[in-house]
Amino acid sequence: MFHIGRLSTVDLEEEITPEEDIVRSRPKEIPHNEKLLSLKFESLDYDNSENQLFLEEERRMSHMGFRCLEIRRWVICGLIGFFTGLIACIIDIAVENLAGYKYFVVKQNIEKFTELGGLSISLILWAVLNSAFVMVGAIAVAFIEPIAAGSGIPQIKCYLNGVKIPRVVRLKTLVVKVFGVICSVAGGLAVGKEGPMIHSGAVVAAGVSQGRSTSLKKDFKMFEYFRRDTEKRDFVSAGAAAGVSAAFGAPVGGVLFSLEEGASFWNQMLTWRIFFASMVSSFTLNFFLSIYHNKAGELSSPGLINFGRFDSDTVQYNLYEIPLFIIMGALGGMFGALFNLLNNWLTIFRIRYVHRPCLQVMEAMLVAAVTATVSFTMIYFSNDCQPLGPDHTEEYPLQLFCADGEYNSMATAFFNTPERSVRSLFHNPPGTYNPVTLGVFTLAYFLLAVWTYGLTVSAGVFIPSLLIGAAWGRLFGILLSVIASSQSIWADPGKYALMGAAAQLGGIVRMTLSLTVILVEATGNVTYGFPIMLVLMTAKIVGDYFVEGLYDLHIKLQSVPFLHWEAPATSHWLTAREVMSSPVTCFNRVEKVGMIVDVLSNTSTNHNGFPVVTHTTGHDEPGKICGLILRSQLIVLLKHKVFVERASSRLIQRKLQLKDFRDAYPRFPPIQSIHVSQDERECMMDLTEFMNPTPYTVPQETSLPRVFKLFRALGLRHLVVVDNENRVVGLVTRKDLARYHMGKDGLEELHLAQM
Amino acid sequence: MFHIGRLSTVDLEEEITPEEDIVRSRPKEIPHNEKLLSLKFESLDYDNSENQLFLEEERRMSHMGFRCLEIRRWVICGLIGFFTGLIACIIDIAVENLAGYKYFVVKQNIEKFTELGGLSISLILWAVLNSAFVMVGAIAVAFIEPIAAGSGIPQIKCYLNGVKIPRVVRLKTLVVKVFGVICSVAGGLAVGKEGPMIHSGAVVAAGVSQGRSTSLKKDFKMFEYFRRDTEKRDFVSAGAAAGVSAAFGAPVGGVLFSLEEGASFWNQMLTWRIFFASMVSSFTLNFFLSIYHNKAGELSSPGLINFGRFDSDTVQYNLYEIPLFIIMGALGGMFGALFNLLNNWLTIFRIRYVHRPCLQVMEAMLVAAVTATVSFTMIYFSNDCQPLGPDHTEEYPLQLFCADGEYNSMATAFFNTPERSVRSLFHNPPGTYNPVTLGVFTLAYFLLAVWTYGLTVSAGVFIPSLLIGAAWGRLFGILLSVIASSQSIWADPGKYALMGAAAQLGGIVRMTLSLTVILVEATGNVTYGFPIMLVLMTAKIVGDYFVEGLYDLHIKLQSVPFLHWEAPATSHWLTAREVMSSPVTCFNRVEKVGMIVDVLSNTSTNHNGFPVVTHTTGHDEPGKICGLILRSQLIVLLKHKVFVERASSRLIQRKLQLKDFRDAYPRFPPIQSIHVSQDERECMMDLTEFMNPTPYTVPQETSLPRVFKLFRALGLRHLVVVDNENRVVGLVTRKDLARYHMGKDGLEELHLAQM
Repeated sequence: MFHIGRLSTVDLEEEITPEEDIVRSRPKEIPHNEKLLSLKFESLDYDNSENQLFLEEERRMSHMGFRCLEIRRWVICGLIGFFTGLIACIIDIAVENLAGYKYFVVKQNIEKFTELGGLSISLILWAVLNSAFVMVGAIAVAFIEPIAAGSGIPQIKCYLNGVKIPRVVRLKTLVVKVFGVICSVAGGLAVGKEGPMIHSGAVVAAGVSQGRSTSLKKDFKMFEYFRRDTEKRDFVSAGAAAGVSAAFGAPVGGVLFSLEEGASFWNQMLTWRIFFASMVSSFTLNFFLSIYHNKAGELSSPGLINFGRFDSDTVQYNLYEIPLFIIMGALGGMFGALFNLLNNWLTIFRIRYVHRPCLQVMEAMLVAAVTATVSFTMIYFSNDCQPLGPDHTEEYPLQLFCADGEYNSMATAFFNTPERSVRSLFHNPPGTYNPVTLGVFTLAYFLLAVWTYGLTVSAGVFIPSLLIGAAWGRLFGILLSVIASSQSIWADPGKYALMGAAAQLGGIVRMTLSLTVILVEATGNVTYGFPIMLVLMTAKIVGDYFVEGLYDLHIKLQSVPFLHWEAPATSHWLTAREVMSSPVTCFNRVEKVGMIVDVLSNTSTNHNGFPVVTHTTGHDEPGKICGLILRSQLIVLLKHKVFVERASSRLIQRKLQLKDFRDAYPRFPPIQSIHVSQDERECMMDLTEFMNPTPYTVPQETSLPRVFKLFRALGLRHLVVVDNENRVVGLVTRKDLARYHMGKDGLEELHLAQM
Repeated sequence: MFHIGRLSTVDLEEEITPEEDIVRSRPKEIPHNEKLLSLKFESLDYDNSENQLFLEEERRMSHMGFRCLEIRRWVICGLIGFFTGLIACIIDIAVENLAGYKYFVVKQNIEKFTELGGLSISLILWAVLNSAFVMVGAIAVAFIEPIAAGSGIPQIKCYLNGVKIPRVVRLKTLVVKVFGVICSVAGGLAVGKEGPMIHSGAVVAAGVSQGRSTSLKKDFKMFEYFRRDTEKRDFVSAGAAAGVSAAFGAPVGGVLFSLEEGASFWNQMLTWRIFFASMVSSFTLNFFLSIYHNKAGELSSPGLINFGRFDSDTVQYNLYEIPLFIIMGALGGMFGALFNLLNNWLTIFRIRYVHRPCLQVMEAMLVAAVTATVSFTMIYFSNDCQPLGPDHTEEYPLQLFCADGEYNSMATAFFNTPERSVRSLFHNPPGTYNPVTLGVFTLAYFLLAVWTYGLTVSAGVFIPSLLIGAAWGRLFGILLSVIASSQSIWADPGKYALMGAAAQLGGIVRMTLSLTVILVEATGNVTYGFPIMLVLMTAKIVGDYFVEGLYDLHIKLQSVPFLHWEAPATSHWLTAREVMSSPVTCFNRVEKVGMIVDVLSNTSTNHNGFPVVTHTTGHDEPGKICGLILRSQLIVLLKHKVFVERASSRLIQRKLQLKDFRDAYPRFPPIQSIHVSQDERECMMDLTEFMNPTPYTVPQETSLPRVFKLFRALGLRHLVVVDNENRVVGLVTRKDLARYHMGKDGLEELHLAQM
């Protein structure tokens, strides 16, 4: 008990470490040089440290004990799903009400001033409302938690890949994220609320699975067994899946997303649990939204974005449409690549010049105002009037200068939340939009979306991408039906809108299987599976020819040591000997405290894992490996002063347990906060019990792909390289592997930089 | 060229090795002792042997070369999908015509004798027709290729798990399988044609990806790079997925099936390729079937089994139905467990007493005749007449003793292919069946299906399971609507039929995520995703309480060393030292030919992998590991007489290349076929170039779960255990790990047996 208190206090005091400070002021420091790899990111340790304490605990546990653990895992997954669904529900209701109120006010104003003349006042009202919403959201993000900016998908991708992104799964991040996304969607930006759901789900998972919140200083004493990277990462996978599931009503898609982004090792029970979390999440959202919409029990809103019902009777495609779909995929790939390129330049520009929070908030407000202005101008100058049928689905039909009983068609696209616009493009009957409207809308929205993504607001890129694609897809469909004289089946522009949406989204994010399934689940109909797959495949191939996916670009700009699926193809030339870092700082089995403190305090190296060796008589001859110990373990040992001398003198002192390590997880105090007296420096520490006695090792001659495979498959953090006498000669970490990547001219090596 | 010929000849001569002979007469030998593990099954080697030849080849290859390889992989996956779809199409058309013809003849006969009296002649006709079909199929299976019996799913599960099942992916197996399944379905057995599709897809994949057929003695000189276990196993995954996809029209379900059963390491590109194969397969089937049904271009038959269209308008469920679904899941779990138990006993009985091919054929014929008799009796004694509406969907409505304009309702269930019966149960309007009919049908069909699975015919268990479940599910629905006074939404018996089908199938096969997705895709509608998941989850939990899944039971009865996802929970007690086999037969870097021949010829040990060590001066002191060489590699070396003396004397002799190893893959000749003269026995062989110089090793203290994880994640075949001097002390193989499993009373150890 006492220890917990003490450790927590230290944690909280040290919450803002110098390292984190750098991160916080991140934009100032990030270079735009793509050939760098940042040293500031640490790896998660997916490999359990099987030291004596761990083995003893596992051995004490009965079969029943393991059963209980398994049940607890299921309960946690259920909770993750439930809370993620609840958050999705809150976001949805908040956005709907705020945006509804905004559009109601603006619509009334426009109607008033259409007759009076003086619509510029309406424009100003609209722009001010938008900017106000966005300002509040941007301030929260920029000043309170910058990591909550953007969709969060790149960060979660990194986390699932095994990179520890500072503060990404904290409660504060979640609060800012949710608040921010409500503001930015209500503020009318070209953004979606779906991406942030994935991040939110991940944070929920990280919180629930640990059974405590360090921010709230509350420890529920639950789920203590799960306080380590291995378990936490599994739960975060479930959380991300639950987020996708709630966002798109796509539980299977969610599972596949998590697997595609994160899993290195497929485990049936884990996958099934993740699926459970996804299902619960989608169900919770569905349940509460149904109640909210006064249709309790009908369960008709499985996701935040609802593509509407593609009816089985009209849903079909013909063989000769397949080439057309492929063409659309290629177009999507090109437009997506263009989007990514423009956004990449913009991001580099932002990193260089727009790095102060004030400036960031102002940029966000500017974008909000411009979005309103562009929309208004478009609507104003459009004379595309459509009759307002008796069963119209428009939420806010703007009459403007149209005749009575008609409404402005451009306004359906602009004067609406993007989700509704997408749905209209998919389902409105042929003839609702005229081609010019669609063309102009596509162009305007494309540029707005490029500008918007990367702003210091919390917002996703899925919906804008879908909207752009749906617009040009529908245009494509209309043009086709004009070319084809007969009104055949493929004059249905809604189908082409769907394919366009898939193509555009695929061209931007470059996801594969998971995106196919997400889109199929969102349409609620499996018939379009094959064409959607073709479209996504083409979009990916074409897009990859030009530039990487949007998320990968952003990950690269942050210089994250991201590990891909396989080592670069032509890297068989390299062996562990060339790749590894050496010389390695090793410890003896029984080591002097002073030595340990000195090594840990050395800020120039800042190593996190240390091989433990036998007989290092001289410093020239490397010792034989007998274990591996982590910085975090040493910190806890120092903190509890587990010194050999003390053990013999004070027999009363309780033995250090695994619990002590878990209590300190994951925010281990820095070495500077631990006071070690001069006397204590002369003591010895016996590491035998605490080190991992069987770390994975490879010989020096092992080829890079082989090292990579071992590292990636097992989610390692440190891999020891030994010679044929089992002597430590080097250490391979994530950065050593991530350094090598395929460039335009073959294998390239990135440089490591402290930043 | 010459070498290929010679090797092939040897292969063919040696095709029936003594080992294989044992397998062929398998049923005679298999004990029914569950505590045994057979030594006859070898592991696939998912870990590349990165020897000098391999590295040289990889290093020679340019970036472009790897691109080409990747493209070739895509082409192969496309071909796999295409051929699998084609085979599905052939099976479907053949079954439809044969069964159609049979029912047509019998129906005419029945109609004739209904008036005349003397329906026993019709019964005899029906029984004889059934038996004849089944006899032909059973003869093919029993006498030509016994491995083609059953659904093939257990075998493919084993293959994907990394176990080499002899002859499972051969062309002959495919031919017998396809022929057999047509016969058994046409013969009216309680079987489906879906399971065998998965096996067929796997064989197609194994064949196409190797670019040759050893059976046909045809080498297309294509895809030579892929002639190794690693690549082949990946393609077989794609084939199995394509099979599922064609069977159920479920491409995503196919991918998940492959991953759930096979993948140890998730690779995005691989998954995407597998998905491509699945999609192509489903599309091909759809395309050709549409043409066959004269609806070319409509693409309305994505799978062999078509659940029919669940219309979006009627597809919904209510919150208060969820407990009912859970109850159905529990029922399904219990019925499934009962099915498995009964079938398990029967299988043990068969192994003991019905192991001669003649007996097997006779049993199959008996079952066919009994099936016809039971069906006929049921129909005969049923007086459940239903009006034959104008838009009736019955293919062969039997009037029998019903009034004109009516038909016998029992006959829709029995006088039909099982696929059609399932569809009727899902979609026929309420009131089509009366409860007694359904109850009797469920019971009869349940017993027939239990008896049928495991017969020496090629047939699957999916459809019978679905049919049983659909019958009692519909019964459940009818009873509910009787209990509930109001005709509310949940009186729709079709929905309950679907849930019952899911519950029963889940209770029998115990698949999880993949089955959910397969069923969702087969219904073509994602709305039922959540209830189906709940039902399957409950069925699995309840079923697992009683007995394992059907496939697992059959795998166990064959004593296959199957590796599960994780080591048994309570196995942290064990370390590599206890688990490993020792002493290990090692070779020196430069070894005497005679020594190698002697070791390889030793039938009592029959090792397949040998650590290569330095300095084994005495036999007491183990040497330091410097590599690992496989039996297959040694065989090729001996075959080509790669002896040190020859290399120096005959400089002209060409260097052995990777191609020589690939040409011999996968049917390496046995050692007995290689003649080594007495002189040659005195020569030396230098293994340096051919051994894998960097095999994975673990220290002796490594815990079993850790060893297991490494082994499973990387798909290893041999894992060398070393002491802290890097000296070989043991070798862990699949059997050493599969030996330990969770029994009723904790950890159990199976015994290894040569059988």
